[in-house]
Amino acid sequence: MVKKYIIAIDLGGTNLKCALLDGQLKIKAKSYFSTKSFDNRLKLIQGLADSVGNFIVSQGLKRSVILGVGIGVPGPVDTLAGVVHFLPNVPGWKEVALKKILERKTKLPVFVDNDAKLMTLAEHQVGAAKKSKNVLCLTLGTGVGGGLIINNVLYRGADNAAGEIGHLPLNEKGPLCGCGARGCLETYIGNNRILKNARKIFGSKITLEKVSALARQFNPKAVAFWSQVGKELGLALSGIVNLLNLDAIVIGGGVSGAGKVLLESVRRTILLRAMPGQARRVKVIPAKLGIDAGIIGAGYLVRERLS
Amino acid sequence: MVKKYIIAIDLGGTNLKCALLDGQLKIKAKSYFSTKSFDNRLKLIQGLADSVGNFIVSQGLKRSVILGVGIGVPGPVDTLAGVVHFLPNVPGWKEVALKKILERKTKLPVFVDNDAKLMTLAEHQVGAAKKSKNVLCLTLGTGVGGGLIINNVLYRGADNAAGEIGHLPLNEKGPLCGCGARGCLETYIGNNRILKNARKIFGSKITLEKVSALARQFNPKAVAFWSQVGKELGLALSGIVNLLNLDAIVIGGGVSGAGKVLLESVRRTILLRAMPGQARRVKVIPAKLGIDAGIIGAGYLVRERLS
Repeated sequence: MVKKYIIAIDLGGTNLKCALLDGQLKIKAKSYFSTKSFDNRLKLIQGLADSVGNFIVSQGLKRSVILGVGIGVPGPVDTLAGVVHFLPNVPGWKEVALKKILERKTKLPVFVDNDAKLMTLAEHQVGAAKKSKNVLCLTLGTGVGGGLIINNVLYRGADNAAGEIGHLPLNEKGPLCGCGARGCLETYIGNNRILKNARKIFGSKITLEKVSALARQFNPKAVAFWSQVGKELGLALSGIVNLLNLDAIVIGGGVSGAGKVLLESVRRTILLRAMPGQARRVKVIPAKLGIDAGIIGAGYLVRERLS
Repeated sequence: MVKKYIIAIDLGGTNLKCALLDGQLKIKAKSYFSTKSFDNRLKLIQGLADSVGNFIVSQGLKRSVILGVGIGVPGPVDTLAGVVHFLPNVPGWKEVALKKILERKTKLPVFVDNDAKLMTLAEHQVGAAKKSKNVLCLTLGTGVGGGLIINNVLYRGADNAAGEIGHLPLNEKGPLCGCGARGCLETYIGNNRILKNARKIFGSKITLEKVSALARQFNPKAVAFWSQVGKELGLALSGIVNLLNLDAIVIGGGVSGAGKVLLESVRRTILLRAMPGQARRVKVIPAKLGIDAGIIGAGYLVRERLS
């Protein structure tokens, strides 16, 4: 039997990750690029097509053994049509028919979806939420992305836009958010705000990686700092835990590097603020697949659509 | 062919409604009791059994034409076991095996579920949300109850506790809630709080029915009053609209008597505060089945479980 492969791409605001996956979605080869090294949208799309071509040539494969190409992008997507609505952190993307363009360029079936949804799919299939039926997956970064598994299936909502947890209102008199509203969760636990707060405590040259490292060394100020972040996050999650009676919440992304301190504070806040039954039920666990989650999710997307 | 019937019961904190439904879930006969007229739990359960018996006798039916008995109760339920965990507004109910007790007393199959869930089921099957795939149904009263339809199916969560929207945190420094937390949605739009605010404006003898009537007559103070209630509710719903990308929100219960003014304010707030795509998608509509929603939902529960 001829071995089949999938090409998976995770297009981030900073990095472009490409991988060749086998039929079991194990990574056989990888390549990384800086997203900013492509001057504009057209060059970036050509870069995606070239990556696909390069895997085929460098691995000595026939095009016929590639089942398809899966792509995750950091923004809202019409996944059936394969149209990217816009990418908040990558300039020049608005209503781009990415599936159609890349299918023409690569002569392969192409499937596109939102990156947080693919990360959620991956963590549920083979990661931290493998045995959980109802799951919220979070990625903490500049923005706060999310995806939902409901009754073991990725929940997309009416327009594939479900999972947007960053704009949960926490305080109607809170800080102004990029979305135009006030006091959204993202204004409390987005990287920019956290970094700003960290600088007040640790000086202007501190990085979030450094504050995370300090917390892992039990520096009391750093522990207090991440506990406060976990409290804000836990408060927002309490409402969702009450509403959705989840089995698990998976937390990944850069900020989650603060690890146990952050997660412990989230857990404590949920136990304190959510309703007892729901609070006791939900597990709060770290993401397992790290930076590969998007790629593995893109592989699942291809497998799901072709089955 | 012999006609089949279902007996449906909606056990509320104030009223106990019983109905005989035909195979199409049309109401053939009804009876109402005051819940408080039963001194204690045992008498109330006997009252439920007697109501079932009375329908059979008064309508001249054979027990064999009754498919089953469906019961909605105002509190958390293990619906598969038919055990009522507790009823916040009916004293003496804790871990009551209602299904088992009533099956013994009535010699009929009995099914029990939470009343907000049954109302949601009914509004989705034959009411306001008939053609909507992803729906949040709300009942506004002393408490704020809710139920979710996800991909056309009632979503129960890990322990049949999903839908608890009343304890969504809106403000961590807000008023103390009955659940022990602060600033829950219920502390802003629960009947008690609304009435307290109404008294400050309209005097100590005002009722919520009166303020609703005034709003329907476009009394400016009453319109401003319900607009503010709608704003608090709309703010909380904005977060859920972002997260779940719903097709529809159905609003019912006592407070919804304020009608258009309240709903218009909820709609306006969602358009202002939720993300544009999700906000434009979601319809905010009044419940259609009124006080019969619980009964019709109980009928669906029986049909669903026996099919």
